[in-house]
Amino acid sequence: MDPIAELLTSYFELNGNIIDELDDDGTEPSPLEFMRYVARNTPFVVRRGAASWPAVQTWSMSFLRKALAEHIVNVAVTPNGYADAPTIGPDGEVIFAKPWEEDQAFPEFLDYVVQQEKGQLDASAETRYAQTQNDNLRHEYASVFSHVYKDIPFARIALQREPEAINLWIGNSHSVTAMHRDNYENIYVQVLGQKHFVLLPPLCQPCVNEQPLRQYNYVRADGGFHLIPEAPDAEEQVKAGDDNSVPFAMWDPEAPGKNETQYSRLAEPMRVTLNPGDMLYLPAMWYVS
Amino acid sequence: MDPIAELLTSYFELNGNIIDELDDDGTEPSPLEFMRYVARNTPFVVRRGAASWPAVQTWSMSFLRKALAEHIVNVAVTPNGYADAPTIGPDGEVIFAKPWEEDQAFPEFLDYVVQQEKGQLDASAETRYAQTQNDNLRHEYASVFSHVYKDIPFARIALQREPEAINLWIGNSHSVTAMHRDNYENIYVQVLGQKHFVLLPPLCQPCVNEQPLRQYNYVRADGGFHLIPEAPDAEEQVKAGDDNSVPFAMWDPEAPGKNETQYSRLAEPMRVTLNPGDMLYLPAMWYVS
Repeated sequence: MDPIAELLTSYFELNGNIIDELDDDGTEPSPLEFMRYVARNTPFVVRRGAASWPAVQTWSMSFLRKALAEHIVNVAVTPNGYADAPTIGPDGEVIFAKPWEEDQAFPEFLDYVVQQEKGQLDASAETRYAQTQNDNLRHEYASVFSHVYKDIPFARIALQREPEAINLWIGNSHSVTAMHRDNYENIYVQVLGQKHFVLLPPLCQPCVNEQPLRQYNYVRADGGFHLIPEAPDAEEQVKAGDDNSVPFAMWDPEAPGKNETQYSRLAEPMRVTLNPGDMLYLPAMWYVS
Repeated sequence: MDPIAELLTSYFELNGNIIDELDDDGTEPSPLEFMRYVARNTPFVVRRGAASWPAVQTWSMSFLRKALAEHIVNVAVTPNGYADAPTIGPDGEVIFAKPWEEDQAFPEFLDYVVQQEKGQLDASAETRYAQTQNDNLRHEYASVFSHVYKDIPFARIALQREPEAINLWIGNSHSVTAMHRDNYENIYVQVLGQKHFVLLPPLCQPCVNEQPLRQYNYVRADGGFHLIPEAPDAEEQVKAGDDNSVPFAMWDPEAPGKNETQYSRLAEPMRVTLNPGDMLYLPAMWYVS
């Protein structure tokens, strides 16, 4: 038997694809319990683990609109909700499309997101998503940072590290995150609404069909969006052997018949939906969408 | 650059090859501190970590000879100290040689080991090593099991497991352990004498030149040793496609110019010598000799 197929089959036989849920009384794991999951590189959910956070208890659309009434936020805009995702480029080939970024007044941004979610906008309306990952809750949104715990104690104690970044993301169901992975230990906390995760362990690398994709940026112009190659000096970079491409997963477990590899059918995605107050540990190097 | 060479180079740049030594006041790590090492798959030493064990405080050759005066022990015998090691076989090819095993009265076994160590035996004398790994300290040597701690609390609490096996090994400097690895978390405690370890992390797999070796057993006969293929029904197994071989490391960091791969020179072995009372955490899947 193909050893990669054997590894994938054994992994899912041993581990299954059901995420561990810790006690649903909201009790966080101890640092040692957390470290066991880090050591096994295995996700878990603590239902209601952040139920006592002020943000979970007090935030609503109207609360945020008032709290951030004077704020300007960085918003990622795409024609279709696919930011940082494989997309058909201007020449018909698949490229990696990064969103158009612009500063917007927070109340207008929030109203747009809510209206779109309620179906009050055209089906063809652009998608807006506040998704900066530059530690925005301690900077861009510093005025509401006191509404969340300043760190996750069980993770800080276990890993002996302060959080490198604390990010707040605000969007609606039109925003789709393409399958990707990061080299960080992540704790997600759901404050409002729901988020649906699809997770794959790192050993599914042979399943996800990573391909080098050239990076393009959406640019808003002439009332529409255009995809422009990212590097201004793209020609020089090509000369130096760097074509500005990034490796990216082409296979998506939500459309398993497209772009599959010979191993994709062996992957058993782990699915979990977070509700307000729920907490998810996403281990470093897991694929997530 | 070759990605495997790059991985090996980066690993040793980041991690070095010096083993972590915890405080030398014999303080064991907490379960959480231990779990951090498990998560990082990284060895450590606790100098004098077992200094308070009755075995460390009371055992000597004469003590053991008395305590086990009536015991019969399983002894591994080889002509040269290389048990479970690559060896030139009867047909000139390299095979995997397992030791001759026999039951001996413990006092005679111990006297032999001591005499050989003192140079009182011929240079060509066989090597004897009590090295069973079948949880022998709770069975074969049960009468002295009370002299050691019944488990390692920091490991039991962290891993939520009782020890699967507790083994006592008795030999002298003529016994050599070939580079190998096991899928177990190991805690070694040195009771008497010294043991020299050479360790390589699991990612050194491309360095160690694993080859399939046919298994042979030493058999004592006619005043000497003969190597006999292990399976009595070897022909039938070959017919079924199983030639009774095991993958085994051919490269030894102690003889780095022999059997090397293109990656062997990138491996930076970690060396550590244990003295009485010292404790070593050897993570699962590390190579050890």
